[in-house]
Amino acid sequence: MPHPVDVVLTFDVDAESLWDARDPDSLAKPIWRSQGRYGPRVGLPRILRLLAEHAIPASFFVPGVVIQRYPDEIGTVLEAGFAINHHSHTHTWAQNLSEQQERDEFGLALEVIERFTGRRPTGYRSPSAEFTPRTVALLVELGFEFSSNMFDDDSPYLLRDGDTSTDIVEIPFAWHMDDAPFFLYSNKLPGRSIAAPSAVLETWTLEFDQLSREPDRCLVVAMHPQVIGRPSRMWVLEQFVRHVLDSGTGSFTTLERVAAQARPTLLKEAGRA
Amino acid sequence: MPHPVDVVLTFDVDAESLWDARDPDSLAKPIWRSQGRYGPRVGLPRILRLLAEHAIPASFFVPGVVIQRYPDEIGTVLEAGFAINHHSHTHTWAQNLSEQQERDEFGLALEVIERFTGRRPTGYRSPSAEFTPRTVALLVELGFEFSSNMFDDDSPYLLRDGDTSTDIVEIPFAWHMDDAPFFLYSNKLPGRSIAAPSAVLETWTLEFDQLSREPDRCLVVAMHPQVIGRPSRMWVLEQFVRHVLDSGTGSFTTLERVAAQARPTLLKEAGRA
Amino acid sequence: MPHPVDVVLTFDVDAESLWDARDPDSLAKPIWRSQGRYGPRVGLPRILRLLAEHAIPASFFVPGVVIQRYPDEIGTVLEAGFAINHHSHTHTWAQNLSEQQERDEFGLALEVIERFTGRRPTGYRSPSAEFTPRTVALLVELGFEFSSNMFDDDSPYLLRDGDTSTDIVEIPFAWHMDDAPFFLYSNKLPGRSIAAPSAVLETWTLEFDQLSREPDRCLVVAMHPQVIGRPSRMWVLEQFVRHVLDSGTGSFTTLERVAAQARPTLLKEAGRA
Amino acid sequence: MPHPVDVVLTFDVDAESLWDARDPDSLAKPIWRSQGRYGPRVGLPRILRLLAEHAIPASFFVPGVVIQRYPDEIGTVLEAGFAINHHSHTHTWAQNLSEQQERDEFGLALEVIERFTGRRPTGYRSPSAEFTPRTVALLVELGFEFSSNMFDDDSPYLLRDGDTSTDIVEIPFAWHMDDAPFFLYSNKLPGRSIAAPSAVLETWTLEFDQLSREPDRCLVVAMHPQVIGRPSRMWVLEQFVRHVLDSGTGSFTTLERVAAQARPTLLKEAGRA
Repeated sequence: MPHPVDVVLTFDVDAESLWDARDPDSLAKPIWRSQGRYGPRVGLPRILRLLAEHAIPASFFVPGVVIQRYPDEIGTVLEAGFAINHHSHTHTWAQNLSEQQERDEFGLALEVIERFTGRRPTGYRSPSAEFTPRTVALLVELGFEFSSNMFDDDSPYLLRDGDTSTDIVEIPFAWHMDDAPFFLYSNKLPGRSIAAPSAVLETWTLEFDQLSREPDRCLVVAMHPQVIGRPSRMWVLEQFVRHVLDSGTGSFTTLERVAAQARPTLLKEAGRA
Repeated sequence: MPHPVDVVLTFDVDAESLWDARDPDSLAKPIWRSQGRYGPRVGLPRILRLLAEHAIPASFFVPGVVIQRYPDEIGTVLEAGFAINHHSHTHTWAQNLSEQQERDEFGLALEVIERFTGRRPTGYRSPSAEFTPRTVALLVELGFEFSSNMFDDDSPYLLRDGDTSTDIVEIPFAWHMDDAPFFLYSNKLPGRSIAAPSAVLETWTLEFDQLSREPDRCLVVAMHPQVIGRPSRMWVLEQFVRHVLDSGTGSFTTLERVAAQARPTLLKEAGRA
Repeated sequence: MPHPVDVVLTFDVDAESLWDARDPDSLAKPIWRSQGRYGPRVGLPRILRLLAEHAIPASFFVPGVVIQRYPDEIGTVLEAGFAINHHSHTHTWAQNLSEQQERDEFGLALEVIERFTGRRPTGYRSPSAEFTPRTVALLVELGFEFSSNMFDDDSPYLLRDGDTSTDIVEIPFAWHMDDAPFFLYSNKLPGRSIAAPSAVLETWTLEFDQLSREPDRCLVVAMHPQVIGRPSRMWVLEQFVRHVLDSGTGSFTTLERVAAQARPTLLKEAGRA
Repeated sequence: MPHPVDVVLTFDVDAESLWDARDPDSLAKPIWRSQGRYGPRVGLPRILRLLAEHAIPASFFVPGVVIQRYPDEIGTVLEAGFAINHHSHTHTWAQNLSEQQERDEFGLALEVIERFTGRRPTGYRSPSAEFTPRTVALLVELGFEFSSNMFDDDSPYLLRDGDTSTDIVEIPFAWHMDDAPFFLYSNKLPGRSIAAPSAVLETWTLEFDQLSREPDRCLVVAMHPQVIGRPSRMWVLEQFVRHVLDSGTGSFTTLERVAAQARPTLLKEAGRA
């Protein structure tokens, strides 16, 4: 007897910042950088169209510099009714940040997003799939309400700072529910390969089917418009959306809503509500 | 005419220790480490449920630090009736160990396991798929009865120290019967990719089918709850279990039992019984 | 209702220069270098035969040194009625070039191609999928009319130098529409794997099918005779060609024609016509 | 109308030498080394059984040290009626050899093979898929008759030393017709993945089918008993053998026979007969 599963499609609109963060000489490499431009310019419209066709919600993470560089494109995310969450300012990887730089990454992007959207972002995803030892304290200090960063569960829980749990709801994901391990490729990124679209679709639909055998699960899919927005990969996303909709057991939602629904119970379980 | 094949499902419950061993700065990387927590917390219950449903045995290897960190979770392995074998104390890779450190890795974990389970572990699997030149002598000295580490056979044999055979039964395995080469991924582990679940199922079922054409074979599957315990991979394990059960020629057993059954014959063949 | 899609098969006939550029000691490695020879000697005739059988056009890029080394083989490209475009002189990667060297790479190959074909090449593809910060200015100075280098669109546009658009038409491509990420392998190129032909065919046909749902798209397939020209990969190309021809919506063309058709509209849109 | 294709199954019986050559500390790593032992001990008997069942020939390459270490196992190759060809003495990679060392590698293995088989080996395959600039001259000096090393054709030709052709017949192969790129894996070999058996079978059968559309082609499959000899990979080899036999157009032969048949024509074409 299948259980309902919350499914959240999340999109990190990194544009060039994904590539800048992986190569300090990126600015001297126009083709390398062009890989990122595909995201906001070509992939994002396809994604918004697919979401509109099926009338399903999604969650977006956008670095500050991408909003500054692509205000029209990112504006379409807002017009479609989606919130924009925090994904750092420049997409710099955590291990390369000093304490002050990390603080600046948070502050600058908060400012840009608030000015651009009129709303303070409530959720955070790290651009490098890593925190520094200071990140959780910063998230608490800055009033974040949810995080989607960890790899240790299939259900939301209260984010921990070391062994102490915070009030922030963590909604974890997994590498095999991310498009980049399967599809992100460059001849200058060593050791990468490109998967068949059907192999990814198989992984994602199996993950959903198996999760719906258990109660209270939430499935987060982490994507990048420059990766999943390519035509042959939009096929994967579209087939996955249809699979979930046809299942009768999955429903698409946002990280905000997952966090809001989970928080009262989680706080109560933690003896804090 | 197919032959009976002994099939042993083995689980290395490494939790964070798998990641700590691969990065000396692991403790400063909470997301990196979170990948391991999935194993005892989410993957392991699924595995125990599957084993219970089909009433099949399995063999577990757990580092000492994981028992200390997750006593409740590892306790469920004992409650389900499975033995816990030796997988080092901290999961440190063999090439990074001095003679004294290797001795400590053995001693500390022996103490922890014996205290936790009331039973001295009789089997050993290296956490790095490697021995030092001293390891076999240590296994003999410490009274181990079986090892599941080598890559050189599809049947048990007497473990050799150089050219001298010991009384320890080696039950070898193979990389393609391990979940990690197919599924273990991190953006900070260079050169890795993620396989389709069906590709792994194909490999494992073909291996079983082909082995059952030969007498006296034993098939060891090496898994990690943090890897195979993910929903889409549990499908692989479940389908593999059904395939073996439906074959009529395979039967699930433990490494202890394989070792106990093989030892008299092997010792006799070696002229030592 | 499907839209017509322009499909351009492009072939980089790199021969040994692909390998020389990746290893400064290449000349001392006859087997390493032999990998490239397959392209003009064995792969190219197969490709020309397939194009002739289906009476379809294609675009070729050939380094100057390859024309010098294989005049007979490259001559068959001309005899078949195809133009030869600029792909550098020695296939040296952009990041290894000084300003003068880059200028020489352009000048030497222009001379060789013009002398060999009687026609100045009008299009350029970088041998390393990278430009230096000076490349676009050089392309303008040297009178190039089109470029097929970027990764940021599925339609032609005016190539930019920084933020300024030029009159050169860029016809972008994508890594998953290139044969090398799937098939290029050597035991001395770290971190590479070999895909199943059907996985590549799936990617390419899905890309075409999805693109034909959108107006004004152009699909560039980037291939190397030494890679796609292998028997099992010619199957991929042949099946892809049949798929496009059978679709009724795709038509094969050249980069020259795509550029010529797109230029008036693009210049008008840029307010320059 | 399909053409007959010569198909040659070749087996490099490298045992531990494959691993020793990739790690100077190999002798201190008993598990790493155990991967090689599988070849002569377990994989080789399966291969000989398959060849006998279908009554088909094959060509073997064995390093001198492997003959010394596994005389009984390598003896079964001779008993089955197959010749043993030269694959260096210690499997050391070409780039690590001084002139004298390369000469010794040839001389020592020649001695070992001649003493063991009573026959001087007539063919050579490099253990590292590479020659030094001196290798071809050595092959000529030592009287070798064929080589199976290059990647530049699908038919035999006269091996060249620089631009001068020798009397040695080269019978080239290709990485995708080798089992190692698909299956060779170790957690200490960076950047490797494991393919599905069906993906390899698809590649090999497509290669054969496509080659049989052309006259005078020869298909060399390069395998290692420690790789292809694993149960799930023996399935690939067996299915491939059946496919070739069922095709009616392929016939299995040896490199010796291919070389002997091709030599007169090749010498005549070169104006030397």
